[in-house]
Amino acid sequence: MKGRNVSNTGAGDTLIIQGEELDKEWEAMYETMVSWRRHLHQHPELSYKEVNTAAFVAEKLTEWGLDVRTGVGGYGLIADLQGSAPGPTVALRADMDALPIQDEKQCGYASKVPGIMHACGHDAHTSTLLAAAKIWSTKKERLKGRIRFIFQHAEEVTPGGAASMIEAGALDGVDVVYGVHLWTPLPVGAVGSNPGAMMAAADEFHFEIRGKGGHGGMPHQAIDSVVIGSHAVVNLQTIVSRTVSPIESCVVTIGSINGGTNFNVIAETCKMKGTTRTFDSALRLQVKERIEEIVASTCKMYGAESVMDYRLGYPPLVNHPGEFERFLEVASGMLPEDSVLTIEPVMAAEDFAYYLQQVPGCFIFVGAGNAQTGADYPHHHPKFDLDERAMLTAGKLLTRMALHVLDETGTR
Amino acid sequence: MKGRNVSNTGAGDTLIIQGEELDKEWEAMYETMVSWRRHLHQHPELSYKEVNTAAFVAEKLTEWGLDVRTGVGGYGLIADLQGSAPGPTVALRADMDALPIQDEKQCGYASKVPGIMHACGHDAHTSTLLAAAKIWSTKKERLKGRIRFIFQHAEEVTPGGAASMIEAGALDGVDVVYGVHLWTPLPVGAVGSNPGAMMAAADEFHFEIRGKGGHGGMPHQAIDSVVIGSHAVVNLQTIVSRTVSPIESCVVTIGSINGGTNFNVIAETCKMKGTTRTFDSALRLQVKERIEEIVASTCKMYGAESVMDYRLGYPPLVNHPGEFERFLEVASGMLPEDSVLTIEPVMAAEDFAYYLQQVPGCFIFVGAGNAQTGADYPHHHPKFDLDERAMLTAGKLLTRMALHVLDETGTR
Amino acid sequence: MKGRNVSNTGAGDTLIIQGEELDKEWEAMYETMVSWRRHLHQHPELSYKEVNTAAFVAEKLTEWGLDVRTGVGGYGLIADLQGSAPGPTVALRADMDALPIQDEKQCGYASKVPGIMHACGHDAHTSTLLAAAKIWSTKKERLKGRIRFIFQHAEEVTPGGAASMIEAGALDGVDVVYGVHLWTPLPVGAVGSNPGAMMAAADEFHFEIRGKGGHGGMPHQAIDSVVIGSHAVVNLQTIVSRTVSPIESCVVTIGSINGGTNFNVIAETCKMKGTTRTFDSALRLQVKERIEEIVASTCKMYGAESVMDYRLGYPPLVNHPGEFERFLEVASGMLPEDSVLTIEPVMAAEDFAYYLQQVPGCFIFVGAGNAQTGADYPHHHPKFDLDERAMLTAGKLLTRMALHVLDETGTR
Amino acid sequence: MKGRNVSNTGAGDTLIIQGEELDKEWEAMYETMVSWRRHLHQHPELSYKEVNTAAFVAEKLTEWGLDVRTGVGGYGLIADLQGSAPGPTVALRADMDALPIQDEKQCGYASKVPGIMHACGHDAHTSTLLAAAKIWSTKKERLKGRIRFIFQHAEEVTPGGAASMIEAGALDGVDVVYGVHLWTPLPVGAVGSNPGAMMAAADEFHFEIRGKGGHGGMPHQAIDSVVIGSHAVVNLQTIVSRTVSPIESCVVTIGSINGGTNFNVIAETCKMKGTTRTFDSALRLQVKERIEEIVASTCKMYGAESVMDYRLGYPPLVNHPGEFERFLEVASGMLPEDSVLTIEPVMAAEDFAYYLQQVPGCFIFVGAGNAQTGADYPHHHPKFDLDERAMLTAGKLLTRMALHVLDETGTR
Repeated sequence: MKGRNVSNTGAGDTLIIQGEELDKEWEAMYETMVSWRRHLHQHPELSYKEVNTAAFVAEKLTEWGLDVRTGVGGYGLIADLQGSAPGPTVALRADMDALPIQDEKQCGYASKVPGIMHACGHDAHTSTLLAAAKIWSTKKERLKGRIRFIFQHAEEVTPGGAASMIEAGALDGVDVVYGVHLWTPLPVGAVGSNPGAMMAAADEFHFEIRGKGGHGGMPHQAIDSVVIGSHAVVNLQTIVSRTVSPIESCVVTIGSINGGTNFNVIAETCKMKGTTRTFDSALRLQVKERIEEIVASTCKMYGAESVMDYRLGYPPLVNHPGEFERFLEVASGMLPEDSVLTIEPVMAAEDFAYYLQQVPGCFIFVGAGNAQTGADYPHHHPKFDLDERAMLTAGKLLTRMALHVLDETGTR
Repeated sequence: MKGRNVSNTGAGDTLIIQGEELDKEWEAMYETMVSWRRHLHQHPELSYKEVNTAAFVAEKLTEWGLDVRTGVGGYGLIADLQGSAPGPTVALRADMDALPIQDEKQCGYASKVPGIMHACGHDAHTSTLLAAAKIWSTKKERLKGRIRFIFQHAEEVTPGGAASMIEAGALDGVDVVYGVHLWTPLPVGAVGSNPGAMMAAADEFHFEIRGKGGHGGMPHQAIDSVVIGSHAVVNLQTIVSRTVSPIESCVVTIGSINGGTNFNVIAETCKMKGTTRTFDSALRLQVKERIEEIVASTCKMYGAESVMDYRLGYPPLVNHPGEFERFLEVASGMLPEDSVLTIEPVMAAEDFAYYLQQVPGCFIFVGAGNAQTGADYPHHHPKFDLDERAMLTAGKLLTRMALHVLDETGTR
Repeated sequence: MKGRNVSNTGAGDTLIIQGEELDKEWEAMYETMVSWRRHLHQHPELSYKEVNTAAFVAEKLTEWGLDVRTGVGGYGLIADLQGSAPGPTVALRADMDALPIQDEKQCGYASKVPGIMHACGHDAHTSTLLAAAKIWSTKKERLKGRIRFIFQHAEEVTPGGAASMIEAGALDGVDVVYGVHLWTPLPVGAVGSNPGAMMAAADEFHFEIRGKGGHGGMPHQAIDSVVIGSHAVVNLQTIVSRTVSPIESCVVTIGSINGGTNFNVIAETCKMKGTTRTFDSALRLQVKERIEEIVASTCKMYGAESVMDYRLGYPPLVNHPGEFERFLEVASGMLPEDSVLTIEPVMAAEDFAYYLQQVPGCFIFVGAGNAQTGADYPHHHPKFDLDERAMLTAGKLLTRMALHVLDETGTR
Repeated sequence: MKGRNVSNTGAGDTLIIQGEELDKEWEAMYETMVSWRRHLHQHPELSYKEVNTAAFVAEKLTEWGLDVRTGVGGYGLIADLQGSAPGPTVALRADMDALPIQDEKQCGYASKVPGIMHACGHDAHTSTLLAAAKIWSTKKERLKGRIRFIFQHAEEVTPGGAASMIEAGALDGVDVVYGVHLWTPLPVGAVGSNPGAMMAAADEFHFEIRGKGGHGGMPHQAIDSVVIGSHAVVNLQTIVSRTVSPIESCVVTIGSINGGTNFNVIAETCKMKGTTRTFDSALRLQVKERIEEIVASTCKMYGAESVMDYRLGYPPLVNHPGEFERFLEVASGMLPEDSVLTIEPVMAAEDFAYYLQQVPGCFIFVGAGNAQTGADYPHHHPKFDLDERAMLTAGKLLTRMALHVLDETGTR
């Protein structure tokens, strides 16, 4: 938690490329990056089906001379840019998939695919990383170390592309990894991150209580799954109220309950589904056990049976404190002080978490909200859009963070 | 509750018609009665739409010379048979409507109307009462008093035909009323009734809890209607466990709960519907008040709102003790001792209850079950059928009960 | 349920003693009976400690020439009065024990024993039965059959004297048994009974939830027995609301809950005690099982343990329908019609139930309430008293019921 | 949150007194400090009754030439040490009161007052601050600025001495305030603090549910306070599970529930008491409102009434981030790196919180645990003791922190 002693003073000496120099290249790249983003926005592809998006990326990277490997753990790609001098390897990651949402925006670049939409900004992530690759591709000889571009498929749907790409070697040889999420809850121009657990493990569970149906007037001949289900929901509240330490974060939500169809028939079954959010892997499994125990005991108490389908989602996304410090330092050198934020943990999940389980790194929210341009809908909303200038902030920041690493001597 | 002193000995003196005599006429009528029942079974009509059934009944009654009044409170009919000597008026009631159920029986007389079926036996009730009218129609001059035949529409659907027929005068001048329900849970040959509350008030309620939807990971920004609804279900259990006297009968069932659709979104609304069963009018209203209070307070507690739609159904059906005693006496004279049963209250509702609120009377279950002929499905089942010989038992019993009344001197 | 054919007509022929004749003897006995009652009232003895009361009874019975057996199953006594002709044996039972209550009455015959009081009327039961024995003792030669006087100890405390007296032979050779309870909720002059289950099985249970104590601010390190106990109470409500048939009576009450002592310490244990009331032996055991299952599962759900001490009390007191009919008939011949009541079941328990499990019989409430004389406190109240004239009603009624049996030819 | 640029390099120039120099004085002072602590330990005084302790402190301070003000808001004292040059004012605070606990230690300095004991370490706090005053008292002329010594009474019992001392001017002119708590959960030699909310607001509430007592077998005539109380406990779980943000800390504990005394009587009243823990003032009041609303609505739902006594305790103790940074910096310069800890918030309360509401500052835990010397009992335990060397750590750290402030130019 305590500060690292970074010797900024001599940085200029050993660094060949300067952040300021690349800023100008980013400005010059902006229109192109927007056009890519709008192209992808019009042609969204669902998770695990990113055929054309991956091809689009691969074509560009190849054109710019990068060493591209496709089909990494699915439609994922990795491309390495090897510098002329030895040094660490910095991985930068973007995700490419879209969502099964009908685009309701009124604009020229709305989705052309019915029922599918880039409602989370992955199109912009991909475009930003593409732009970074293009800019860097002309500077290989001035690079100490290596930059790996990771274009990941299937972030929106578990088990997610990250795990399979890592399995396929995406992090082999990588020293540090960064990723961004353009984020409309933050205003464009701001950036934020967190020194530890920043995004939640979001697990999903479905369970069905199987009682015994019957005449609504004869409860003694039935096993009332609606009453049992309701008790289960009530009982589950105790996990957060009693089982979890008050200084740990945890959510147990039953999003849906459905039992019975008639007013005068006792329901044979009652189905529930819900989600948990945790920021600690041990707690996460403890909560799973508690949910299973509570549902099972509630059913046993009333003579019913239960079927539980518990689906572990992504693990908690935990930034590395030292890399968060680097983020603060780099961002503070690039943006006004009040635009660099330490944010509270966010309850959404992100499979970038898997990368951070393997190597040091940091995930960063880049403000993309702008009420004046209509970029103020929440992520996953049918009218979601973002302020495209956020791509510029994201690109510059990732560039400077990579440079900051490559500039260091020795390993961290 | 204590026994009445009925002097059976002199009954023969004042009674012109003997029960035994009519038994033979009933036997002779059986095939006709079955054919009517099967005709009606093939041509069922839903509640409030009994056009052809009513016309069928009216045509026959008119043909036999009864004084028929149609359109009584809807498609209901009443027909009076005035005897040659003054005496009390005995009303006998049958219901005529069918149910929105697809007939799944494999037999020659299955319903010809898709999705509509006589799955409760009202076809047999109507046919039996028709047969009674035909038999009696030839014996007017030997009748002391009057018999009123009530063919009621719309028993299956609230508000029901009984109330409107009474409103239209169906019970004017009536001294006592009887009705039967052919009942497959009892074996054919048996009959049963109860000295007091025999069938329940069955009320219906629907309520919606309106909270505030939100992200499944951010409960503090939402008002979780699933949790509130579950608490409501749990809280409602206390009505039966704590509010109702242990020696009174009461059921509060939530037949259905539906809230939310996604595992990871907090549900804005949760809808429930249920039914109550009571045998006492004061308790019935107390239960209604308790349900309303519990739902409202549960919502208030958590900052939600509720909308309640409480629909009072039929009142409890309460036989008159003296008329139940008559049933025991008459049935015991006609059937083996172990075929005459005092049955426990039944949780189903029946709008015959309204007649009993106005005049003395008794409602009787006539066994119609026979596992060997397939007549062992519960009422309202797609394969429901009854042992048609039950019509003979019902016809004879109603005849003898009417005779028993007409034979008495003075009013009861 | 249907009426028995009792041939009253010839009763006079075979009966030697007439009820009216004995009525006069009862009137003459009144003052003596009152003096006995007041003596016993001043010298109450707790259950299982009825030394002097039993001696008082034995002395009198022996003096009057009855065949007395003492020490029957404890301090119980039985005394037979054998008639001159063969016939059935009728047992009449009174209980003798008092309660651990401080008498707060202001009257000359208040209890002289600190903290002990006849607050339930057993003193009057004993005195009435003594008077009956005295009256009958002079009429042995006119008696067809036998009367057994049962003076029972320990009715107030389980396991109760009834079971041990039956074990010791108190019902050997008995054909029918009657007992009364003077009852202040009924006005003096009235009597009441019920054709079936009239008094409840009253069981008692104690359970302790053993969690893990801890700091009030650190619930995750504790297992909160107060929360678990509260859930158990809530869960137990479902027994009556869902498990028990709506036409059966059942009560599950938690009378006491005690967990923890400090506001800021999580309670290690939470203790509860409660009672059940049922009128059916099978249901009674089912309720016991449900309570045990619910408490055990509730504890298991939260990782706590439970200790259950379930104490079965007296069984339900179920009158025999035929003997209830006899009660109606006899009482109607003795009292005005509106003083003979069919009462609803009472939730209190009474070990007379054990006698009725063995032989036919009936238990009868004899009105003893009188607001004008202060006899309007509930039973077990420190100011409880009864209208002593109730003893006269009780004595006459028991006499006539016994005569009614002895008068019958053959066994019932 | 971001790092301050502290130029340590030039510190020596402007600082007259060096931390290292004073370290030696602290070592020399150790035996004296221990003797003071043991004296106070043998003569503990309860909160608001610290007569002799205050006199002991006043005598010493006066002897050393400090400007002592006694009777500050009670038995509190403040003493200023004005340096020779102008500068900021640093306040250091110790608390003086003991607890109503019987000392069970076996040692020569155990409490001589029956039932009263320094079981929390305030004796050591006072002794350490006394030692600091003695050391500093000889160095006035070398001091730039002012040091204020605050000896506070009544920390253990609300409303606490802090508020009244502040009211009486204890913080007037103060720029920064520090306090320590010797802490046995941390090993001696370690120190820890937190950049924000470090100790909880601990509120207390008592409520009674007033139903209607009754016969255990007749729930319909009663209003069951045990059932209502149990529902209240269950309902209160939703505050933490649904009302509070998952990233905020909150505890709602019902420490005690007591309703009814007999197994077979429905309890008229049920009493509960509990505590809340929060770290945010707005949340604290929201939780209070929720508790009041839930208890009131639960009672209303069942026709009961409630009486609530809600007692706000100390507010959350929130360190100032900049002063926490100073703690890290100063402590890291004095102790091995792994002995300087950023600790998680603690659920206990401390009225040092009031000082931090007024001026910047930091509260610090100084490890005092040592299993080998028996100093491993939790605070408030009858066998509580601490490793007295912790006083040395505390004294040196406070000294260096004060010096660090006085050494700064300008205000922070």
